[in-house]
Amino acid sequence: MQDDFKKLRAENARLHSLLKITQSLASVLDLETLLSRIMDEVCLNLKADRCTVFLLDTDTNELWSKVAKGVKKEIRFPADKGIAGHTATTREVLNIPDAYADPRFNPEIDKKTGYKTKNILTMPMHNNLNEVIGVFQVLNRIDGPFTKQDEELLQAISYIAASAVENAQLYDEVNKSFISFIETLSTTLDARDYITSGHSRRVTLYAVEISHLMRLSKAEVDIIRYASLLHDIGKIGIPEIVLFKNKQLTEEEYEIIKRHANLSKSILSKIHFQKHLREIPMIASTHHEKIDGSGYPLGLKGSQIPLGGKILAVCDVFDALTSRRQYRDRMEIEKVVELLENETGSSFEPFIVYQFKNIPLNILIQILEFGHNDDLDTNDLKILKDYTLKDIIQVRKKNQKTEKEIELERIFMRYYSRKYRI
Amino acid sequence: MQDDFKKLRAENARLHSLLKITQSLASVLDLETLLSRIMDEVCLNLKADRCTVFLLDTDTNELWSKVAKGVKKEIRFPADKGIAGHTATTREVLNIPDAYADPRFNPEIDKKTGYKTKNILTMPMHNNLNEVIGVFQVLNRIDGPFTKQDEELLQAISYIAASAVENAQLYDEVNKSFISFIETLSTTLDARDYITSGHSRRVTLYAVEISHLMRLSKAEVDIIRYASLLHDIGKIGIPEIVLFKNKQLTEEEYEIIKRHANLSKSILSKIHFQKHLREIPMIASTHHEKIDGSGYPLGLKGSQIPLGGKILAVCDVFDALTSRRQYRDRMEIEKVVELLENETGSSFEPFIVYQFKNIPLNILIQILEFGHNDDLDTNDLKILKDYTLKDIIQVRKKNQKTEKEIELERIFMRYYSRKYRI
Repeated sequence: MQDDFKKLRAENARLHSLLKITQSLASVLDLETLLSRIMDEVCLNLKADRCTVFLLDTDTNELWSKVAKGVKKEIRFPADKGIAGHTATTREVLNIPDAYADPRFNPEIDKKTGYKTKNILTMPMHNNLNEVIGVFQVLNRIDGPFTKQDEELLQAISYIAASAVENAQLYDEVNKSFISFIETLSTTLDARDYITSGHSRRVTLYAVEISHLMRLSKAEVDIIRYASLLHDIGKIGIPEIVLFKNKQLTEEEYEIIKRHANLSKSILSKIHFQKHLREIPMIASTHHEKIDGSGYPLGLKGSQIPLGGKILAVCDVFDALTSRRQYRDRMEIEKVVELLENETGSSFEPFIVYQFKNIPLNILIQILEFGHNDDLDTNDLKILKDYTLKDIIQVRKKNQKTEKEIELERIFMRYYSRKYRI
Repeated sequence: MQDDFKKLRAENARLHSLLKITQSLASVLDLETLLSRIMDEVCLNLKADRCTVFLLDTDTNELWSKVAKGVKKEIRFPADKGIAGHTATTREVLNIPDAYADPRFNPEIDKKTGYKTKNILTMPMHNNLNEVIGVFQVLNRIDGPFTKQDEELLQAISYIAASAVENAQLYDEVNKSFISFIETLSTTLDARDYITSGHSRRVTLYAVEISHLMRLSKAEVDIIRYASLLHDIGKIGIPEIVLFKNKQLTEEEYEIIKRHANLSKSILSKIHFQKHLREIPMIASTHHEKIDGSGYPLGLKGSQIPLGGKILAVCDVFDALTSRRQYRDRMEIEKVVELLENETGSSFEPFIVYQFKNIPLNILIQILEFGHNDDLDTNDLKILKDYTLKDIIQVRKKNQKTEKEIELERIFMRYYSRKYRI
């Protein structure tokens, strides 16, 4: 009875570890910390010396350890090598009482790390599609080889770990696909519209910069970033003969061009956005609205226009005026800002124009020269960093300039007005 | 001691249920079965009468039960109503010994179901972003109100359930975004290229039909489906003046057109495809390769061309010859098939042309008339179903036709050669 009681108590302690691990699932949001905590718990409860979760890198077909407690270096080896490799390949649980007596054991890692492996317990980890995603490995149980109960507990724990790993991988997948989709759509537009190539990307960089100056949240900045990349996607549906016309557009042609705003919306509305990104089509389609209601496609006024749309409106016009086209230089920067200011309060939201003029000059030049950034001088950028667009306009208008101001103007204009083939 | 032993045994049994549930995680792949098994286990171990997992529908802000053991109907209510609603809103664990004495309790559901709720235990379920995704609710513990230990165990179990739900939702998200994105890209192409509008979709339908006739696996069919939808995406980069030219193309213009195959590949290569879909850019870009090596862009031969590319090649040409254009009727069907046959063995893989001719006529007509399917007569389709493209060609060439053959030809030609505005 005394013995039974003891055994039962021991069993209870072990099962309690499962409870603790499961609770970590909820409280720990990042995968690495979670795995590390799971491994601590396993070492403690299986009385093991070391515990490793090997993840399968399907690109290289290697196993690698994300967290190897007590080992600093990343371990990485072919996914069919050693005991862990055997488990990854065959999905067998291996409980090996004497590692060096087992021909499947790969002693090379011990050689590298200086560790002496005695006994081993490995467990395959699967995802929901029943594919192997990794191997849970526990080394050197202190009281001798691993038991059946150890196996049972580790199995449960490795299910939990696998589920957490899969979750993290899926989040990663969702994000990677999404970003690659957006970039592809945006590049697709560029593939056609070589004249304005880079426009969407520059507008995005301006819009993100303003969003940061306005201290918008990461979530808000993300929406604005994607809406900017895609704001002109509707131009895909506008005939090139109108879109690329060199001469003055007729009224009718202008009406055709204007369709692109609505087209952007209808194309983007087909995309299944995650809930927090669902405003993107609306923002993208309002980049030609004006706060006095004279814009298109809907003639929205003031607060009816989403903030992102208002930011896009300013950036879109700024880029149109400052981008290089074939046979056309950039408009003078004072003239550009004057144009923006003239339409502030009618077309543009005053606070956004105000923030646009607060963009530091080093950033402004890097966006203006996007795609030609290799030859920007680091020292020049350092000097530009302390001034804004507002500053350079003031300097340009001054009759009497300090030496510092002359230097600033010289640096800015060196890039702003330099010529190269596009 | 006897008492302690008993308590310990009971505790052990409860903890073992956690082990069992965790094991289900690995063995049960579909969410509904898994939740149902988890709920059985909870009822058993918490000695409860009923157990429900309510999921949060973020679109309508309602809680709804996916699996309510013993209740057939779907339960759905505002996410801030009742005890479960309180838990969803405040994230509080509620352990209520007498439901009807609690003002937060919503007796309406009892009224609807005829059930008598006595005591309740609810637990919020979170995802990895710490958003509430549902509520775990247990009703009517048989031996009186739920205990602290019940709470502890249910907490662990609801973490596991939440992780499984989140996983399923993420898989769903990955798929939905992917499909919507492919459709968007494909529609984007159509938005420009109104003349060949529907081409990608019809080619896709033919290609999928052939894939089925060839008994390809679901995974293979998926790759071919997406590659078909996107095979012409590179045309985005071809100037309209060349792409839409009505007259004979010059050699130079033809070279420009030919670029679209490579462009498709380079646009599609920017997409982050899940591992099993990574062949898509390659397949899409080989739809103009010919098995004798005389195709483009690479001049691949025979087995160098992926199967999907070979299928696309046949479907692409068939659709080009049979689609209606402004000022042009469909080419006669015998001539179309003759053209395909003449190039079988040089341009086309014989087995694929063979399978193409095996497409049942009801399906062929539905694809040919894609977008005009409303007025297809069900009886006609029933008759067409028993014949293939091969059959109709034979009938067309015959001098002496049976009555049945005349009827078949009449039905087929009624659709094949009918005229309408496009």
